[in-house]
Amino acid sequence: MERIWHLPTPERGTKLSSSQAMKLAISEASKGAPRVSPNPMVGAVVLDAQGGFLSCGYHEFYGGPHAEVNALKNLSPEELRGAHVFVTLEPCAHEGKTPSCAKTMAKLPLKKVTFGLIDPNPLVAGQGAEILRAAGIEAEVFSSPNAEEDHDIKIKLEEACEAFLWNFRQKKVFVALKMASSLDGQVALRSGESQWITGPESREYVHYLRACYDAILVGKGTIEFDNPSLNIRHPTIEKKNKVIVIDAEAELLSRFSDLKLSKVHASADLFWCVAAEIKERVDKVVAEMSGAPQIVYVKTNVGGDLDLQDLLAQLYRQGLRSVMVEGGAMTASSFIDDRLVNRLYMFQAPIIMGSGGSRSWTETIRISSMNEKIHVKNPRYLTFGNDFMITGTL
Amino acid sequence: MERIWHLPTPERGTKLSSSQAMKLAISEASKGAPRVSPNPMVGAVVLDAQGGFLSCGYHEFYGGPHAEVNALKNLSPEELRGAHVFVTLEPCAHEGKTPSCAKTMAKLPLKKVTFGLIDPNPLVAGQGAEILRAAGIEAEVFSSPNAEEDHDIKIKLEEACEAFLWNFRQKKVFVALKMASSLDGQVALRSGESQWITGPESREYVHYLRACYDAILVGKGTIEFDNPSLNIRHPTIEKKNKVIVIDAEAELLSRFSDLKLSKVHASADLFWCVAAEIKERVDKVVAEMSGAPQIVYVKTNVGGDLDLQDLLAQLYRQGLRSVMVEGGAMTASSFIDDRLVNRLYMFQAPIIMGSGGSRSWTETIRISSMNEKIHVKNPRYLTFGNDFMITGTL
Repeated sequence: MERIWHLPTPERGTKLSSSQAMKLAISEASKGAPRVSPNPMVGAVVLDAQGGFLSCGYHEFYGGPHAEVNALKNLSPEELRGAHVFVTLEPCAHEGKTPSCAKTMAKLPLKKVTFGLIDPNPLVAGQGAEILRAAGIEAEVFSSPNAEEDHDIKIKLEEACEAFLWNFRQKKVFVALKMASSLDGQVALRSGESQWITGPESREYVHYLRACYDAILVGKGTIEFDNPSLNIRHPTIEKKNKVIVIDAEAELLSRFSDLKLSKVHASADLFWCVAAEIKERVDKVVAEMSGAPQIVYVKTNVGGDLDLQDLLAQLYRQGLRSVMVEGGAMTASSFIDDRLVNRLYMFQAPIIMGSGGSRSWTETIRISSMNEKIHVKNPRYLTFGNDFMITGTL
Repeated sequence: MERIWHLPTPERGTKLSSSQAMKLAISEASKGAPRVSPNPMVGAVVLDAQGGFLSCGYHEFYGGPHAEVNALKNLSPEELRGAHVFVTLEPCAHEGKTPSCAKTMAKLPLKKVTFGLIDPNPLVAGQGAEILRAAGIEAEVFSSPNAEEDHDIKIKLEEACEAFLWNFRQKKVFVALKMASSLDGQVALRSGESQWITGPESREYVHYLRACYDAILVGKGTIEFDNPSLNIRHPTIEKKNKVIVIDAEAELLSRFSDLKLSKVHASADLFWCVAAEIKERVDKVVAEMSGAPQIVYVKTNVGGDLDLQDLLAQLYRQGLRSVMVEGGAMTASSFIDDRLVNRLYMFQAPIIMGSGGSRSWTETIRISSMNEKIHVKNPRYLTFGNDFMITGTL
């Protein structure tokens, strides 16, 4: 189950067009989704001098080899003579945790490198391409003569890097919102009951998505009502995740040790967001706790709620680059209302709960004319068992 | 765009398995969706003695030739020697508007006839098969050795005939409900504004669906707010449809001639449902009108609203066999709440309207525990432009 595309690896020698090769590179890139953050997902495809498929690879985990290196590693110089490499992002020009990919490729007998996106860092943008050209290798940004296909591929190239690009361009945390509702948009009964709306296939995918982001964020109500573990339970992914709890008045802190969260996660992975006004009181409480979570002090707005923009700025300062808001309804609604959500994952189960006795996930949102409706852009639909999911950007 | 499946017609001679042939017969059947009511959709496929595809056909319009006849009509006795016919419904035993299909086929040199469903009329069930067997032709009900495929095909065989089966078994009108909402289940702003939630591709499909049912049903509010035509505007379907308006107090009747409806539809095609209590007053009003709609007098329930069960019974008596409820929100909600909806068509646009200032389509529905949630069974998902639709039975 992949985040963007899942294309099968072609047989060696299969002729691929430039668009097919770039789509395959994106499909490869998305395999890295649960392990590369805060790096971008990157994928690469190598075609031989006749345009036949040779190999592919992707950036598999944070700190690990880059996509180009993984795609090229098992190929001999003879195989690479006149080869054409497709990579979703401009090859890096400088050494980081790994050697420069542009310099590595410059030593190979390649004919051409086509990349999807130019490096978003203006200080190094185009330098990877320059290193290649200096070595006599053609280097160009991908484009397709078919306008519709070109648009589609570019949207997906951006999507593969979206959190990375957002972090880089805005210096802000990328925010995903995951909701699970009935067909009529209800997420819980007024009593609070909400388990289970969606089926096991959807829930497994949610655990996959948790791995794709640095942290899960929930409101106080979710902890009070469900006392969830909020860890990653997935058949093929083992990963520790971080959890952020919004608890403006620090009400849950006094019974922190009773929460499942506190048992499942290391205290360094738990972030408790409380109002900056009560810092003195909270500092005292924390001083007496053993294994206290990280406390994040956040400005409050006129209504007394935490200012979500400041909250995200504080989390960015703590080193977090992407979060997935998981609820409850009020928390979700507030993030949308403040226009802070970058990507939506909306699961729907084929059930009707009735809005007469339930809660919607958009209760605080009110538009006064249809012109103000909020669009989910570039929507994609997936089905999971009897459920379906829409994802897109807000 | 087909209602159930759309499979391409295979090349002549293409070998088809029994399941492939029956799926193709269902796909053929569904081509008749907009023109056969109150008859069922029926499709047929003919394979030669070697299992190669020969031809297919479907029941195209009410009163027209049956599927078997259309599938067989261009084939010579030589071609049909040892042939195997697949048909979604048991061939009819008796003459009706057209000759008996079983008798017609009994004269042909066929080897075998496999049909999807046994005739639902217990008085004639199995008689079609008997006629064939008497002529030395094998006749059997379809089944697949693959349990999952068998289940899937049987669900779709029932779906192709669902209104017909419901009419026959329950002597009741089949009720479909079409709603178009935002992702958060909202169908209109509190101001009443609702145009347009979904895109042009979805709206075209709604016109197709209108043609699949005998009549469209709307509440008074929809007429007051939108003054709609409620006719069928589709690039490939030309069909007059019937319209049912729920107007318990007959408030709209006094300005009937101002309504677009009254100009677009013949008065014989308009059904006005009013409370039985006000019969005397309404009879007087109607006597003075020229081109008055058909008046349907309906019992009221304790709340003063029309009793929807009685309303459907009255419509059945008027000869209507299937209706598609199109709104507004309160009308939809009441039909669901009274458990009168057979099939749901739920279109969703990738937009968020916010439930804070909008109306949901399930406002009158209230469940007190998750065990009471209403399931949409055998859901299928289709996309239309950026929108998607779920359809299933309730």
